[in-house]
Amino acid sequence: MHTLRVELGERAYPIIIGERLLSDAGLLRPHLDQPRVAIVTNTTVAALYLPQLGETLRASGVEAISIVLEDGERYKDWTTLNSIYDALLEHRCERRTTLIALGGGVIGDLAGFAAATYMRGIPFIQIPTTLLAQVDSSVGGKTGINHPLGKNMIGAFYQPRLVLADSAVLASLPQRELSAGLAEVIKHGLIRDDGFVLWLEENVEKLLACDSNAMAHAIRRCCEIKAAVVAEDEREVGVRALLNFGHTFGHAIESGLGYGKWLHGEAVAAGMVMAADLSQRMGLIAQADAKRVVKLLKRARLPTAQPGIEAARLLELMAVDKKTEAGRLHFVLLDRIGAASVRADVPSKLLLQVLEASSGE
Amino acid sequence: MHTLRVELGERAYPIIIGERLLSDAGLLRPHLDQPRVAIVTNTTVAALYLPQLGETLRASGVEAISIVLEDGERYKDWTTLNSIYDALLEHRCERRTTLIALGGGVIGDLAGFAAATYMRGIPFIQIPTTLLAQVDSSVGGKTGINHPLGKNMIGAFYQPRLVLADSAVLASLPQRELSAGLAEVIKHGLIRDDGFVLWLEENVEKLLACDSNAMAHAIRRCCEIKAAVVAEDEREVGVRALLNFGHTFGHAIESGLGYGKWLHGEAVAAGMVMAADLSQRMGLIAQADAKRVVKLLKRARLPTAQPGIEAARLLELMAVDKKTEAGRLHFVLLDRIGAASVRADVPSKLLLQVLEASSGE
Repeated sequence: MHTLRVELGERAYPIIIGERLLSDAGLLRPHLDQPRVAIVTNTTVAALYLPQLGETLRASGVEAISIVLEDGERYKDWTTLNSIYDALLEHRCERRTTLIALGGGVIGDLAGFAAATYMRGIPFIQIPTTLLAQVDSSVGGKTGINHPLGKNMIGAFYQPRLVLADSAVLASLPQRELSAGLAEVIKHGLIRDDGFVLWLEENVEKLLACDSNAMAHAIRRCCEIKAAVVAEDEREVGVRALLNFGHTFGHAIESGLGYGKWLHGEAVAAGMVMAADLSQRMGLIAQADAKRVVKLLKRARLPTAQPGIEAARLLELMAVDKKTEAGRLHFVLLDRIGAASVRADVPSKLLLQVLEASSGE
Repeated sequence: MHTLRVELGERAYPIIIGERLLSDAGLLRPHLDQPRVAIVTNTTVAALYLPQLGETLRASGVEAISIVLEDGERYKDWTTLNSIYDALLEHRCERRTTLIALGGGVIGDLAGFAAATYMRGIPFIQIPTTLLAQVDSSVGGKTGINHPLGKNMIGAFYQPRLVLADSAVLASLPQRELSAGLAEVIKHGLIRDDGFVLWLEENVEKLLACDSNAMAHAIRRCCEIKAAVVAEDEREVGVRALLNFGHTFGHAIESGLGYGKWLHGEAVAAGMVMAADLSQRMGLIAQADAKRVVKLLKRARLPTAQPGIEAARLLELMAVDKKTEAGRLHFVLLDRIGAASVRADVPSKLLLQVLEASSGE
């Protein structure tokens, strides 16, 4: 078991990483204001882990109510959010009742936004059950829902009290979900740590096989990187934007396909290939570097080309993304493998070349 | 013109109080990140002040889009909130576009919650146009919407960048709205400043006549009290709860009647009478003090009895209010005129007596 801290002053919190944490009755109780929690999860995760978490909570004298949602990105909307509020009100959850998100990124985002806005904010704990959520979305306080015109358009920055990353639960992940998580793992290396990229190139097969030592190392390194970036820039006015590498393209792919067709990590993988291609066309990295990105993603069994959405449509979708300023699109580009920066000076011609080439590979 | 500051560290902001501020082109521009704003208002206020504010903004080189909502508490809901998001997205408002609330408490709460959650938070300015909003709801960062099961159940703490209280706009307020504002003015005195209560007892007719010197004094004193309380306890874990004096009863009255039948300030007035009655039955204040509260509210042309809702129904409505903890209702009670405290030890019998007596007066 290993504990990291996200250093955010009065909003600081620990990330506990380890195996079989879900059965550890001593871990949660010290972080609760009252012996009562509401667990938000989905049908898939509930079948696997809800009884276990419920039992652990009962063993430490905590009453738990469960709110079980449908599984899938397409449920990350107003209607589902409202069903969480309704359940919290029906069960008379109070300002000091803790809301626990038990699930992947969609559950974390939805439950986190519900916690941020129910009675103007109640305590919140993340128990991520996918690799993507453990290495990325559960850390840093981004919460929200999708709007028909754009992904994560409605939301809040709201930090959890605790993140509990139990690597034992990853054994039940479908291959496709594991690979989607690896997309965000690779992202952390590409933008911030070339040594970690080298390590990934040596260990990607171990991660695909869910080797517990390799997995523990990857989760810890990603959480360290993310915690440091978030501590430096909680509300994304600077360096935190680098974590969006591949996401402007990726969000457009997800919107263009309709939420839920591709997993978020899959869209981000194709988006990172496009961002690397753009970095190369901007003269920032060599063609060999862009190819190295593609190769690593391929080995992680991720898509490296977008699914044939027209360039004009992608442009339109990117224009409503949050990463615009004074009408100009911003892009996170690679300066080299292991370092990135935000650029607002991308010539339209190069962008169009990238979009047109993006479904061809 | 007078400027106060709400001291909240990195979230500190000024409240500017004065006459004809809406026409002062120099006031807003320094608080904007980009020369573009979205004004959220309602049909009533738009007819009176939107052209003037738009002209002032244009004169300082700022582009303004307008989002004009229906007027009334019953529109403080999901549907209206969504219409704000839709308009912001359609107009491609960005993370640095400032949202301006031009209106009363409903507009401030709705627009503030939209600003808190659009793209996880955009800059926000309050231009309150009712007395209630100028002395209370525009200061302190409470934002939110109603849920069918309770008032302000969904919301966020989100501080504005600036509050601009232009007392000239109060001249257009209907008498009933002015009185509703006086309920919150009187509340500030009752919980915190017996000298101000004496002043109100001497000046209530001047305030009803919208005398500009008296009004300026009342707005300033209320903003001073509220700013000090909020600076001490932004997220209402302690002293800020005192500002809810009369509100647990008042919210139950509003819910019981259906939102919008009574104005918020009217329900709070009847609620303060009930809270004063409870304070007296608890032996905290003398009967003469409770009568003094009733008399001042009557002189301000406010209701001092609730409109005949059954005691059992009021109890039920209070039980889902936010001010419960471990299942127990909390009440803000008067220790004397000018001082209040939160009590969780109210015997059910006394509470029932208050509820049963409350529609009799």
